[in-house]
Amino acid sequence: MAAVGAATTLRQAGAYYGRSLPRRAVLTVPSSDWKKLTKLPTFTNTDCVVLDLEDGVADTAKQTARENIFRYLNESASKINREICVRINSMSSNHINDDVKLLKDLSTLIDCLFVPKVDSIDEIKWLADRLGSNRQYNLVLYCESAQSLVDLRSILTSASNLFPLQGVVFGSDDFSADVGINGRYSLDAYELTYARQKLVTICRLFENAQPIDMVYINFKDLDGLKKQSEQGAAWGFTGKQVIHPQQVPVVQTAFSPSESSIIWAKELIQAYEKHEKEEGKGAFTFRGQTMVDKPLLRRARYILNMTR
Amino acid sequence: MAAVGAATTLRQAGAYYGRSLPRRAVLTVPSSDWKKLTKLPTFTNTDCVVLDLEDGVADTAKQTARENIFRYLNESASKINREICVRINSMSSNHINDDVKLLKDLSTLIDCLFVPKVDSIDEIKWLADRLGSNRQYNLVLYCESAQSLVDLRSILTSASNLFPLQGVVFGSDDFSADVGINGRYSLDAYELTYARQKLVTICRLFENAQPIDMVYINFKDLDGLKKQSEQGAAWGFTGKQVIHPQQVPVVQTAFSPSESSIIWAKELIQAYEKHEKEEGKGAFTFRGQTMVDKPLLRRARYILNMTR
Amino acid sequence: MAAVGAATTLRQAGAYYGRSLPRRAVLTVPSSDWKKLTKLPTFTNTDCVVLDLEDGVADTAKQTARENIFRYLNESASKINREICVRINSMSSNHINDDVKLLKDLSTLIDCLFVPKVDSIDEIKWLADRLGSNRQYNLVLYCESAQSLVDLRSILTSASNLFPLQGVVFGSDDFSADVGINGRYSLDAYELTYARQKLVTICRLFENAQPIDMVYINFKDLDGLKKQSEQGAAWGFTGKQVIHPQQVPVVQTAFSPSESSIIWAKELIQAYEKHEKEEGKGAFTFRGQTMVDKPLLRRARYILNMTR
Repeated sequence: MAAVGAATTLRQAGAYYGRSLPRRAVLTVPSSDWKKLTKLPTFTNTDCVVLDLEDGVADTAKQTARENIFRYLNESASKINREICVRINSMSSNHINDDVKLLKDLSTLIDCLFVPKVDSIDEIKWLADRLGSNRQYNLVLYCESAQSLVDLRSILTSASNLFPLQGVVFGSDDFSADVGINGRYSLDAYELTYARQKLVTICRLFENAQPIDMVYINFKDLDGLKKQSEQGAAWGFTGKQVIHPQQVPVVQTAFSPSESSIIWAKELIQAYEKHEKEEGKGAFTFRGQTMVDKPLLRRARYILNMTR
Repeated sequence: MAAVGAATTLRQAGAYYGRSLPRRAVLTVPSSDWKKLTKLPTFTNTDCVVLDLEDGVADTAKQTARENIFRYLNESASKINREICVRINSMSSNHINDDVKLLKDLSTLIDCLFVPKVDSIDEIKWLADRLGSNRQYNLVLYCESAQSLVDLRSILTSASNLFPLQGVVFGSDDFSADVGINGRYSLDAYELTYARQKLVTICRLFENAQPIDMVYINFKDLDGLKKQSEQGAAWGFTGKQVIHPQQVPVVQTAFSPSESSIIWAKELIQAYEKHEKEEGKGAFTFRGQTMVDKPLLRRARYILNMTR
Repeated sequence: MAAVGAATTLRQAGAYYGRSLPRRAVLTVPSSDWKKLTKLPTFTNTDCVVLDLEDGVADTAKQTARENIFRYLNESASKINREICVRINSMSSNHINDDVKLLKDLSTLIDCLFVPKVDSIDEIKWLADRLGSNRQYNLVLYCESAQSLVDLRSILTSASNLFPLQGVVFGSDDFSADVGINGRYSLDAYELTYARQKLVTICRLFENAQPIDMVYINFKDLDGLKKQSEQGAAWGFTGKQVIHPQQVPVVQTAFSPSESSIIWAKELIQAYEKHEKEEGKGAFTFRGQTMVDKPLLRRARYILNMTR
């Protein structure tokens, strides 16, 4: 792809991909590790890069990580033709105040804010209040506890009122620790069926809340990763966290629409647009069926977005 | 079975089978196809026939379908010794007003009304209001979206206040499209575990809300149908949608009570009635256990209903 | 272990194990069977003994069972070095008034009260009101119906406000009868996935509500019991009901923490205590990660409790 212009003009909030951007592989990079940051421009195959300030960064390295992010985004963000995000620390940590300060200096340099361990509406309100005019950040939040899963609907309602809400990540490790689920998952993660399927269902109540699936910890086992990715895609997740560049192509492929679904989506959108133009609003017929369903149109648009 | 009398006197709302009628196989027939309607009297092995106005009927054939239903019910309803229902279009479609008009002419000719894509309490209230005195229809509604599943309890509460609520159909195809679940299901429908098990559980809060399971699309694969039917029956569904007459006997068998459960039910009801007569209300002993549980009595009555 | 002192001083409410006591195997004994009661002191390998007044006792034997409990606890409770509990009849039964009378005579003799078939907040309030000053009993309640599962969060909120709530038992048999789930479970209890995983998740919203898993009915099949116990432990249950002494060792082992998790827990607690002493409240680093999470501390304490 062609080189892009100055990051400060390119990466206006939401301007890069817009609201319905695909995030198949979501690669988290520890921001304390400058060397890893400088390698990022070569990972052009991931939809989404998350510069981490939270669990991937030791307590003593938080300030270094913040400085790295600031320097990296100003120097190199324009070189990486992917969505760039920052994961801050949780609202219950004592790092959050310094993270918020950093965010005020980054407002035009990142595409989306990742917020971990959101357990209550109050945390979201607090964050919106502290960010002030930086509240225009696209938001992806993490569901990582029993409380968060149980209250997910009200948390997302609040979040979508205060931010352009774009996704929910299932933080399987912290969720499992909270619920007491055994850390060594079975391959099919049978023990997380309720949590993952509920999360996907709740996300669908919100126009743009992409459900992003759990990490596959054993990053050397690409076969296992493929199976779990395909399972997640079949269940309705639209993407998956990755912790190693090797995982990216497997995940990107698993969460890409199939050829037949792309054809279906194109034809559906064409039929809808033709109908809108010729007959105005209302039901139309597609492949022999009455098409009045918003879900199908939304799904078709989502699929086409994935192919841009 | 003996021929039955005039449909207009037989098919009073709820009078045919009463409130706890079994609906094991629920066969949907496209009402635009007159030839299929005329074949119905030979399908005496299905508990429930649904004359469809919705997804099985093309947009351009809706009015023909309505006329077919009116003519068929007046001419032939008395010949088919099964529950006869009509599925109208959804409240969000632009066909619903004409469907409601038709219903006003059918009030004594059908046993039950099937209402698809119920996503909110408001839709149910609107329908009750529009039907007016035809509100005495027994009601079966479809849960076919994330919104519907999440709000199912409140939707059913409202529906059971306004109608004799008798069932909830899990519309797996539309639900899957809405949630983004991959259309090609695995045989065990693992990806719908949360939705199906939650739906059954919520139904049980309502006295007569029979949970009716998903369609098995591949109608030539009777082995697969048998497995999925037995799974549904084991999970608490009381019946299943069918789209082809060949599927009927497999489904009817899978959702029939076993010999031993029929014996159990008969003895429980006998013990209960003896106790009621001799000692009045209260707990009684059955097979060595104290029997005070409403659920067990309800279940026994349900099983006996199935054997009529 | 050494013999313990007088039961009346030992078994103050909650004093025996304290609030976070482990209950791996929860052995229910029919209190109408005096012979079984007298054998109890030899079952020193179960964490928890429940003297049953409910489903294990025939209607005609309830009074005998109450008398046995009174006599047994006064004569022999001191000989059994395990938690001793009583399961009363449900609030909807006509035995509950006599059970409450018995409880008033047992106040210092039992560790915890097991309350079956809790379907509503009102039942919990009624019980608290009737028990009066005996409300200091630790409470374990049973979730055994669709209603109970759907309303579990509000039921537990109420229960934890009125009692020291310590656990929730999944009553799979009654739950299955209520929902219409087929009584002959598959080994992996796939049909109860939603119910069991939701129950565990809801329990985790409450500090001490241990989730206790379903009974494995076929008590001769110890291999099957082992598999189902390990599944329950992996899903977040902390214990399991047992109906036969032979089941106890299998269950106790399956719900015991592994060697590595004990080491993890010890080191985490040490790091936390060191941090607290040297630097006061706040985040600390453990195994390279920032540790601010209450869930991890709670989990570590729970694991260490299990090893006492």
